[in-house]
Amino acid sequence: MVNILGGKGANIAEMCKLGLPVPPGFTLSTSLCSDYLKVKSLSVVLKNNIKKNISKTEGVVEKTFGGSNPLLLSVRSGAPVSMPGMMETILNIGLTSKTIPHMIKMSKNEGFVYDSYRRLIMMYADVVMEKALGLNKSTQSIRKLMEKELESVKKYKGYKNDSNMKAKDWKALSNKYLRIVEKEFGIPFPDDHYDQLYGAIAAVFESWNGKRAKEYRNFEKISSSMGTAVNVQAMVFGNLGKDCGTGVAFTRNPSTGENVFFGEWLPNAQGEDVVAGIRTPHPVAGNNKKSLSVAMPEAFKELNSVRKKLENHFDDMQDIEFTIQEKKLWMLQTRRGKRTGIAAIKIATDMVKEKLITKKVAVSRIRPHQIYESLLKNIDPKDVENSLPISLGLPAGPGASCGVAVFTAEKAEELGKKNKKVILVREETSPEDIHGMHYSEGILTSRGGLTSHAALVARGWGKSCVVGCQDLIIDKSHTFAKIGDKKIKEGDLITLNGSSGDIYLGKMRLFQNPLDNTGPLSLLLSWADKIRKLKIRTNADTPDDCEKALSFGAEGVGLCRTEHMFFDEKRVHEFRKMILAEDRESRNSYLKNLLPFQTKDFYKILKKMDGMPVTVRLLDPPLHEFINIHGKEMRNLADDMGLPLKAVEERVDSLKEANPMLGHRGCRLGISYPEITSMQARAIIGAAVKLKKEGNNPKVELMIPLVSNLAEFLNQKEIILAVKNDILSKNGLNINFKIGTMIEVPRACLVAEKIAEEADFFSFGTNDLTQTTFGFSRDDTGTFFPHYFNEEIMLADPFEQIDRKGVGKLMKIAVKDARATKNKISIGICGEHGGEPNSIEFCKILGLDYVSCSPYRVPVARLAAAQVEL
Amino acid sequence: MVNILGGKGANIAEMCKLGLPVPPGFTLSTSLCSDYLKVKSLSVVLKNNIKKNISKTEGVVEKTFGGSNPLLLSVRSGAPVSMPGMMETILNIGLTSKTIPHMIKMSKNEGFVYDSYRRLIMMYADVVMEKALGLNKSTQSIRKLMEKELESVKKYKGYKNDSNMKAKDWKALSNKYLRIVEKEFGIPFPDDHYDQLYGAIAAVFESWNGKRAKEYRNFEKISSSMGTAVNVQAMVFGNLGKDCGTGVAFTRNPSTGENVFFGEWLPNAQGEDVVAGIRTPHPVAGNNKKSLSVAMPEAFKELNSVRKKLENHFDDMQDIEFTIQEKKLWMLQTRRGKRTGIAAIKIATDMVKEKLITKKVAVSRIRPHQIYESLLKNIDPKDVENSLPISLGLPAGPGASCGVAVFTAEKAEELGKKNKKVILVREETSPEDIHGMHYSEGILTSRGGLTSHAALVARGWGKSCVVGCQDLIIDKSHTFAKIGDKKIKEGDLITLNGSSGDIYLGKMRLFQNPLDNTGPLSLLLSWADKIRKLKIRTNADTPDDCEKALSFGAEGVGLCRTEHMFFDEKRVHEFRKMILAEDRESRNSYLKNLLPFQTKDFYKILKKMDGMPVTVRLLDPPLHEFINIHGKEMRNLADDMGLPLKAVEERVDSLKEANPMLGHRGCRLGISYPEITSMQARAIIGAAVKLKKEGNNPKVELMIPLVSNLAEFLNQKEIILAVKNDILSKNGLNINFKIGTMIEVPRACLVAEKIAEEADFFSFGTNDLTQTTFGFSRDDTGTFFPHYFNEEIMLADPFEQIDRKGVGKLMKIAVKDARATKNKISIGICGEHGGEPNSIEFCKILGLDYVSCSPYRVPVARLAAAQVEL
Repeated sequence: MVNILGGKGANIAEMCKLGLPVPPGFTLSTSLCSDYLKVKSLSVVLKNNIKKNISKTEGVVEKTFGGSNPLLLSVRSGAPVSMPGMMETILNIGLTSKTIPHMIKMSKNEGFVYDSYRRLIMMYADVVMEKALGLNKSTQSIRKLMEKELESVKKYKGYKNDSNMKAKDWKALSNKYLRIVEKEFGIPFPDDHYDQLYGAIAAVFESWNGKRAKEYRNFEKISSSMGTAVNVQAMVFGNLGKDCGTGVAFTRNPSTGENVFFGEWLPNAQGEDVVAGIRTPHPVAGNNKKSLSVAMPEAFKELNSVRKKLENHFDDMQDIEFTIQEKKLWMLQTRRGKRTGIAAIKIATDMVKEKLITKKVAVSRIRPHQIYESLLKNIDPKDVENSLPISLGLPAGPGASCGVAVFTAEKAEELGKKNKKVILVREETSPEDIHGMHYSEGILTSRGGLTSHAALVARGWGKSCVVGCQDLIIDKSHTFAKIGDKKIKEGDLITLNGSSGDIYLGKMRLFQNPLDNTGPLSLLLSWADKIRKLKIRTNADTPDDCEKALSFGAEGVGLCRTEHMFFDEKRVHEFRKMILAEDRESRNSYLKNLLPFQTKDFYKILKKMDGMPVTVRLLDPPLHEFINIHGKEMRNLADDMGLPLKAVEERVDSLKEANPMLGHRGCRLGISYPEITSMQARAIIGAAVKLKKEGNNPKVELMIPLVSNLAEFLNQKEIILAVKNDILSKNGLNINFKIGTMIEVPRACLVAEKIAEEADFFSFGTNDLTQTTFGFSRDDTGTFFPHYFNEEIMLADPFEQIDRKGVGKLMKIAVKDARATKNKISIGICGEHGGEPNSIEFCKILGLDYVSCSPYRVPVARLAAAQVEL
Repeated sequence: MVNILGGKGANIAEMCKLGLPVPPGFTLSTSLCSDYLKVKSLSVVLKNNIKKNISKTEGVVEKTFGGSNPLLLSVRSGAPVSMPGMMETILNIGLTSKTIPHMIKMSKNEGFVYDSYRRLIMMYADVVMEKALGLNKSTQSIRKLMEKELESVKKYKGYKNDSNMKAKDWKALSNKYLRIVEKEFGIPFPDDHYDQLYGAIAAVFESWNGKRAKEYRNFEKISSSMGTAVNVQAMVFGNLGKDCGTGVAFTRNPSTGENVFFGEWLPNAQGEDVVAGIRTPHPVAGNNKKSLSVAMPEAFKELNSVRKKLENHFDDMQDIEFTIQEKKLWMLQTRRGKRTGIAAIKIATDMVKEKLITKKVAVSRIRPHQIYESLLKNIDPKDVENSLPISLGLPAGPGASCGVAVFTAEKAEELGKKNKKVILVREETSPEDIHGMHYSEGILTSRGGLTSHAALVARGWGKSCVVGCQDLIIDKSHTFAKIGDKKIKEGDLITLNGSSGDIYLGKMRLFQNPLDNTGPLSLLLSWADKIRKLKIRTNADTPDDCEKALSFGAEGVGLCRTEHMFFDEKRVHEFRKMILAEDRESRNSYLKNLLPFQTKDFYKILKKMDGMPVTVRLLDPPLHEFINIHGKEMRNLADDMGLPLKAVEERVDSLKEANPMLGHRGCRLGISYPEITSMQARAIIGAAVKLKKEGNNPKVELMIPLVSNLAEFLNQKEIILAVKNDILSKNGLNINFKIGTMIEVPRACLVAEKIAEEADFFSFGTNDLTQTTFGFSRDDTGTFFPHYFNEEIMLADPFEQIDRKGVGKLMKIAVKDARATKNKISIGICGEHGGEPNSIEFCKILGLDYVSCSPYRVPVARLAAAQVEL
């Protein structure tokens, strides 16, 4: 009943059913939240219901709310989905000038009572009066003011810790807090127990529409209509004395996944003390004499048995909160424990071994991105233990990075080109910084949020990135920055954890989990492989890429971009001459120079992928990138081509295009210059023939790019078949290969029925298809995408996740029409979406045969493809 | 039976049926052509059939083929569609060493017989032996060799004209021709009458697959499978003596359409003499003493009655050929007369008045492009009469142009910018010349055909253009050119007729037919208006455009591009400041400066179009065009904005995009800078309110550009509605207007169902939709489109004619889905296709409500829209 009771409320109810010790109370359902938000007040009916339930609670605990044996209450929010950062809690409700004397009498501990009272005042002032009612007009938060007050008392009295505070100190502080509330807000702190309770409940409802909560929901795509539940429970106290305590724990290690009880506790404390970090908490388990197992063996024994009951009941690792009041254990909360990717995988596979869950459940439980995360670079945990972050920003691009700080894109490019690892530090980034970002290991900004330019670009490129670090002040000279009193000069080493947002000074060791063949990830993926039906290929341009992808479980190459083979310095020179050739004859002679390179490349790749399909895309070079040459480079080229410099310059100029994305590329190039297609076909088929002669089993698929009608495809196919016939007549060896096309412009989808008559396979190039379907140039979205996300015009980046309603509709037309022509035509996807789980699901719905993605995404895709089947 | 008999054959048969005097004979049907082409020889069956028909003909004329009263034959091609330039004719077949003496005896005119014989030898050698059999190995054509021979005889003898040639001269020449044939081709001229006949028939069939014929069919999109028919008829002779003659005539004036008999004849001549231009022909009608009506009144009378019979029978103006042999009139051919656009319109409207045809037939008979042509610039006919073209090229871009010759694109741009009228003269053009072509009145090239770069660009831009003028030799200095011995220096005035291909030296007067309200065009269009259901609007950016379009019959404005209002020098400065503003505040202040301009513009346009719908597109500026500024201009701007030069330079740089076509434009701009949308809405609604207060009836339609999802549309709609409410609350005047969107990216079509929920109208922007559907940037197609047309990968330019299979499929989806949501939603088209007849037909099929096109295209669209209904 999570949707009605919220996560927290539902789990409390489950714990009750299990007979675990839970403080009595009740939950206000989520539907009451939307009722409240409509009228902004609690109805009479609701108030009566609350009163009824209070009296039931009073019956169980044998105390009275506002009475002489006073029942104190906690009020806590609990939405159906976890929303950290919006959770509001108010404790100790019911402490008033009337009940305080009774409490002192009952507890025989005046210090405890006034400590509890000052906590109530602070929480209530913060959550109800400042945040919900918006009473604070000053720039400083009420919480800050009150914390300062406590500090000044401690300083004045010379106390080191809160525990040094005497009863009279707490009492004086409470009175001071009451005065602060009245002064700052203009109204007094409510001294009626029901006023406190209703105020707290309304404030929790109100918090559902708070700024932070809305932002979080937007980002996580959570519906606004759910609302939050409110949990009202009798207070239990971990700070009543030495036989009390409080703690939080995970039923297994959330970082590594090891099956050990992992938690912390503090004697004589309330929950927030453990989290706040003022006192150093002790471990729950272990032999340390301060550990709960040694200090309170009975309570620990019960807690440990609760731990097992919970895991058995929920079949999952739990994150629990508990309080021990006068030796009695109370369970305050249990929930699914958050964990790192590595831990998630370890726990799931362990639980299968423990027969707690089935393999299918294990496979369905891991979020695909956790696999990706588990393969990302991380900071060595030992280095993390020994270092304190100097600040925290928003975690915008997962993974860790370490390098020298630079403050301009130019410097980043300059050093990056020299293979120096750099972290680009900027106030915010803009499209002009792109070239520098490209050369950076990591990116750190002082402004902007999770959808800022820096964040978008970094995630697009898989770069480590921390944004919106408000402590970071970059000097206008762009030679140094400051975080607090720490100075970071250009060239100083810094380390970012893009998964947490932590920023560290100095160099830290980074490591990357290898995909251990015998480890939990391999085990999990082997189960996934048995479930999934979609094949997983990889986008790989070199034998090294293939090697890596094979180790990650790729079942073929879905996209080998031949132009990437020419980025090598020696080859690029020959390639440029070919591009710039002014006539067919000289182009042919340059192509002849390139033929041996290409044949060797394809030989190696096909050998590496022996027996698996390898889709080679014919040349689709971004011409403007290849000929971005000047000065000496240009002169060398001219000399080498035996042409005047001016002629080469003119030719370079003539190749510049208004919109290169929509220009002379793909098969258009092969149609204008058939000799290029011919050379490539010769290299690919030649390599395959050589391998076949050597007893191998090459499976070649030639892919013609950017086709928008059948005639284009046929033109190129005929060139390839002519080369085939020529080679085979010389070799007398028959070789089979497929000729297919990339479907990457809308028109290709619309005439798929015709193209399928001649094509052996289709592969969706969803990057370009997204660009043309929306009319967005990916290189130019930086200027308007931030507005689009801010204004909620787009909820997901269509370059990340397939836009099902637009691009997806075209894909659907293409698949349906192509299969109508040729039932068995092989159809896959090789755009970057091929490694994104939501898109993989869509590919399955469409009935594709395979997805192809970058090597690191292959394990993610293997899991996602299995989950689609479940 | 045109498909079986060919055009010529079918019309000859019609003339027979009408009882007109036609030389007896028969027609070989088109299906025999494909039979022949399969086996490349005439079958025995066919030969027998030919013989049978010859004997029938012999019976009628009472002569014998190859006999002592010899029947001579003509063999003429005749395809089902007119194919000028491939028509082959061989006359006088049957003249052999055996029949010549009989002919001399019969005709008592040896000169006539040998003249006829030498004509036969030359035609046969040319058509059969050289072209069909390919016997000639030399570079000079046999025809040229023979013509030279005749010239040298005349020169030697001192003859001025062919008519001075004596019988013995013709005889000697015939013998010389026989020797030339044997020497050049290695085989003798056939002396058997059936050899001659079969050779001629086979050659005509063969000519169907000749190079010229194939090229013509490709260009005119005529199917290759039709084949040509062959007409075999008894010869009649216009050159038997003074009571003979031959002529060609149009039943009405083909240039002006006037209902006068318009033709030329020559006494004592064969048909080719009239066409060849060696002797100056005389008029057919009129009082001139050399006119046929005076010279042979009887024959003329009969011819004039034939003229009327033919017009009555065919209901159309005819182009006829006739021969008079010994005072007897023979009709050789009749066909639909080609005519200028102006003539076509005049003839059609006259024929309605004459009750020859109905209004519907008149409307359906005019080709829409003839309307366009009739509105193009033409050379003053008087100037044409007084000038001889210095050369002829291919007519690649209709309309005339006159200006100074320049030989580089740079010079064209330089002078063009100074408003000098220039003609760009190049060997051929390439994309680098585009900037110069833009500034040229006309374009002339020495190389390339009707689909060359120059031709494509010129037609795209509606520029006058002549290509492939082989006589034109451009000096390498690019300062002058030569045509024959005529020198054209840079700066010399030349005149082009892009509709005929004629090139003239010097300045000629150009004129443009005004759309006379009482003239034939207005009359025709008024009939069209009653038939058509599609509304015709115009694309107009200024009050002047509106004025022009109204005079052409526009029924509203379908696209008013607001960015074009800023091209004015004074405004562009303010506009640039607005674009370059770094924050909202300064942008707002610049926008305030622009508001009065805009309000005034809209006021004028709406007033001009009072009572008609005016669709105003919100700002969609090509930013890179607006900020293409340097040097002083940039400094002025910086000074004016109070910013350092570097800041402005940086901002200009930051606005540069990788693919501006797919960049920060359209509604994306309005979403990033809502203040721009707001200002424009204020100007438009403000202008409308003012007009309404003044008692006018403004009908405003605000159009949001480049929408790809509903949220974009809503974002902009809300801004507009807020402005509306603000203005109305101040004015207290209610005003209705529509808010709609341009459908110009594929995704908009795919989610039309959603967008239609909120949009009042759709307007297809088919230019951009074509670009994104194909992934073609129109600016960059110059590099590969020529290959695409050469290789027949595309048969029509999708930027000219809507690509029904791709772009059209998207449009269909959009219309269907939008209407499913909102049955009555108004849908139109405002891309350049809106004025193209084939596309207009498609719009009708789709069920659109209106098309919108440039003012000059409005009459074309009015007619095309009517024809769609017929």
